[in-house]
Amino acid sequence: MTLLPHRRALRPRALVAASALALLAGCASAPNATLRGTGDLGVVVERASGSVAVVDTSAHQVLERVEGLGDLSHASVKFARDGRYAFIFGRDGGLSRVDLLRGEITHRVMQSGNSIGGAISQDGTRVAVANYEPGGVRIFDSQTLEPVADLPATYRDANGETQRSKVVGLVDAPGNRFVYSLFDAGEIRVVDMSGDPQVTRFSGIGQQPYDALIDPSGRYYIAGLFGEDGLALLDLWHPENGVSRILPDYGRGEERLPVYKMPHLEGWTMAGRQAFFPAVGRHEVLVADTADWTLSDRIAVHGQPIFVMSRPDQRQIWVNFAHPNNDVVQVIDTQRREVIATLSPGDAVLHMEFSPRGEQVWVSARDSDRITVYDTHTFEEIARLESESPSGIFFTHRAHRIGL
Amino acid sequence: MTLLPHRRALRPRALVAASALALLAGCASAPNATLRGTGDLGVVVERASGSVAVVDTSAHQVLERVEGLGDLSHASVKFARDGRYAFIFGRDGGLSRVDLLRGEITHRVMQSGNSIGGAISQDGTRVAVANYEPGGVRIFDSQTLEPVADLPATYRDANGETQRSKVVGLVDAPGNRFVYSLFDAGEIRVVDMSGDPQVTRFSGIGQQPYDALIDPSGRYYIAGLFGEDGLALLDLWHPENGVSRILPDYGRGEERLPVYKMPHLEGWTMAGRQAFFPAVGRHEVLVADTADWTLSDRIAVHGQPIFVMSRPDQRQIWVNFAHPNNDVVQVIDTQRREVIATLSPGDAVLHMEFSPRGEQVWVSARDSDRITVYDTHTFEEIARLESESPSGIFFTHRAHRIGL
Repeated sequence: MTLLPHRRALRPRALVAASALALLAGCASAPNATLRGTGDLGVVVERASGSVAVVDTSAHQVLERVEGLGDLSHASVKFARDGRYAFIFGRDGGLSRVDLLRGEITHRVMQSGNSIGGAISQDGTRVAVANYEPGGVRIFDSQTLEPVADLPATYRDANGETQRSKVVGLVDAPGNRFVYSLFDAGEIRVVDMSGDPQVTRFSGIGQQPYDALIDPSGRYYIAGLFGEDGLALLDLWHPENGVSRILPDYGRGEERLPVYKMPHLEGWTMAGRQAFFPAVGRHEVLVADTADWTLSDRIAVHGQPIFVMSRPDQRQIWVNFAHPNNDVVQVIDTQRREVIATLSPGDAVLHMEFSPRGEQVWVSARDSDRITVYDTHTFEEIARLESESPSGIFFTHRAHRIGL
Repeated sequence: MTLLPHRRALRPRALVAASALALLAGCASAPNATLRGTGDLGVVVERASGSVAVVDTSAHQVLERVEGLGDLSHASVKFARDGRYAFIFGRDGGLSRVDLLRGEITHRVMQSGNSIGGAISQDGTRVAVANYEPGGVRIFDSQTLEPVADLPATYRDANGETQRSKVVGLVDAPGNRFVYSLFDAGEIRVVDMSGDPQVTRFSGIGQQPYDALIDPSGRYYIAGLFGEDGLALLDLWHPENGVSRILPDYGRGEERLPVYKMPHLEGWTMAGRQAFFPAVGRHEVLVADTADWTLSDRIAVHGQPIFVMSRPDQRQIWVNFAHPNNDVVQVIDTQRREVIATLSPGDAVLHMEFSPRGEQVWVSARDSDRITVYDTHTFEEIARLESESPSGIFFTHRAHRIGL
């Protein structure tokens, strides 16, 4: 599940000044750098070694390995709008800016004691990080990692005491906004960064939101609830309507098997009017009609699904699974709504990433120390890359998508 | 309208060998080149001077000007998957490959006497060009512009004579396919480039298809008909069903005003279940329900619409117009279905391009020799760039979208 226990009892380390790493701002050519486009680059998180591999999706090669990124368990990555810089959000509160062309860290700050992902603003100027400890959101300049705003997730508990909540499900939204959820407070908050930060709060959205997604248009923000069934939906085009509950039976009420890992909501797929998403604790992918959010189908799969991801043309859904069924990936045909392929990319399959137009997919198998690249039309293996305990895979075209 | 008269009576010039321009394949750094990401680059076609301006969408600047591209009236541009190389399809049959980082042409071929746009394959290895003269499609290696395939658009006319048709509406589709229409033959053809080219023909699709579009998922190919009303729809997921007719009243039957220019079909907008598209010859934007392709609304606008383009979040539609109303751009709210802003970017507004996440839009005003950049939330002018007779504007994120 996304909500990991605190792994460290570190005191929140105040913002450590941006380290004085190479600040060469990428103008003239220089040794050590490769003149090339950045549209076919990506990074693979190698969590055991605290490094990322910079990969070339045309040549199917690892180009560089960038080390010194700290604790990368559950790390995620966003990209600057130029496709050159990657922002790596570490579990330990480290935020690093990596130059993919030089293969080096340009800036790094320890911005909290425990964090869980981040986002980049629509205009590319701001990077936000969701923190567990101290609970809140911190926002930085994307060029310098200088702090811009600090938004503590304070709320009053049942006794009227002021507390800080863990923050989860942080995403960008159109209008230079960030949206996030407060696990302990049961709130969704929206911050508008067009000028001075303006925070809007939505309270009482449900018990323990643990993760969230935003749809590809940036309109619908949906938070999963750990403490009760159903999902919380905020229509960002109509914030005046507040937060509503959808799919009321979704969640632990579905449970028939022990839940090994809460599925990732980022992995939801909206394909036309259909949403495909992982059941909680059951060996099923669920299908809902996005017009009224009713459940329309259940597709039997190999294990408890974690990521349920659409090929960009929406004709296929690729699914990976929780332990102990995590050595398999399955492919669902979205029209027939049935499994059409079962592949074995290795042990502990953690993530998948499609090339932007969908002709290939990269799959990480942590315990086999490898990435396998498949042709999504033939399911043939195109390439295999060595990587140390690979987890998340992120390609630079994400820079150009809302919510990614 | 897209179907321009032949402007030259050139004999088809056989393929001119790729000119021996700099073949430096972009590895090591070199003088004259800028180490930078390519995700925020774009090109603006300057048709009077046969040049393109390379632009930076972060700094709002022209970085380079690349000349010697021939006749760029009605030119279009596609990008390699690395975002570094642009393919410029000239009106005169010239196909040029431009290195955006070095600001120079790497390869150029005169591949026909008269051409009308092109496409790049899903895997990025093939570039296809639609030719009027000689009618057909030619396909090239995207690295070298060496010819790979020549697909003459031959057909038998009413007298049983073999003729060659002009080709229009060429797009890429998933599965390394290209789809295109034969103006004179009333056909749609699909070529699968996964191995040796395999062409599938769909005959009798309607009179004189003059342009086409493919939806963002790459499933629906829709051709506009110049010779009769309605549109021809091919569902690429179900080619066995053949081509059907949709929106039977769409076209010249709509006409009440003289048609100054047939609207661009590329400009159609699919926003959720709604399609917004230009009426032919009327001062209206039409709205259809994509579930059954019935017309659901007509929105009154300033002139005859040419491009009807959705902001990436689908909340706004931006529209430009045919002569003599072509000094204005209007913005439609997709929920209210009414005009919410009217802007005056200059004389002869020819094209618009949104930044990938939609926070800004670039608008070309040919007769004012300028590009205006607007904030799409406030409608304020962010920047103004000088450009010689600018027409099409194309940003590199198109490399990562099906059909763009």
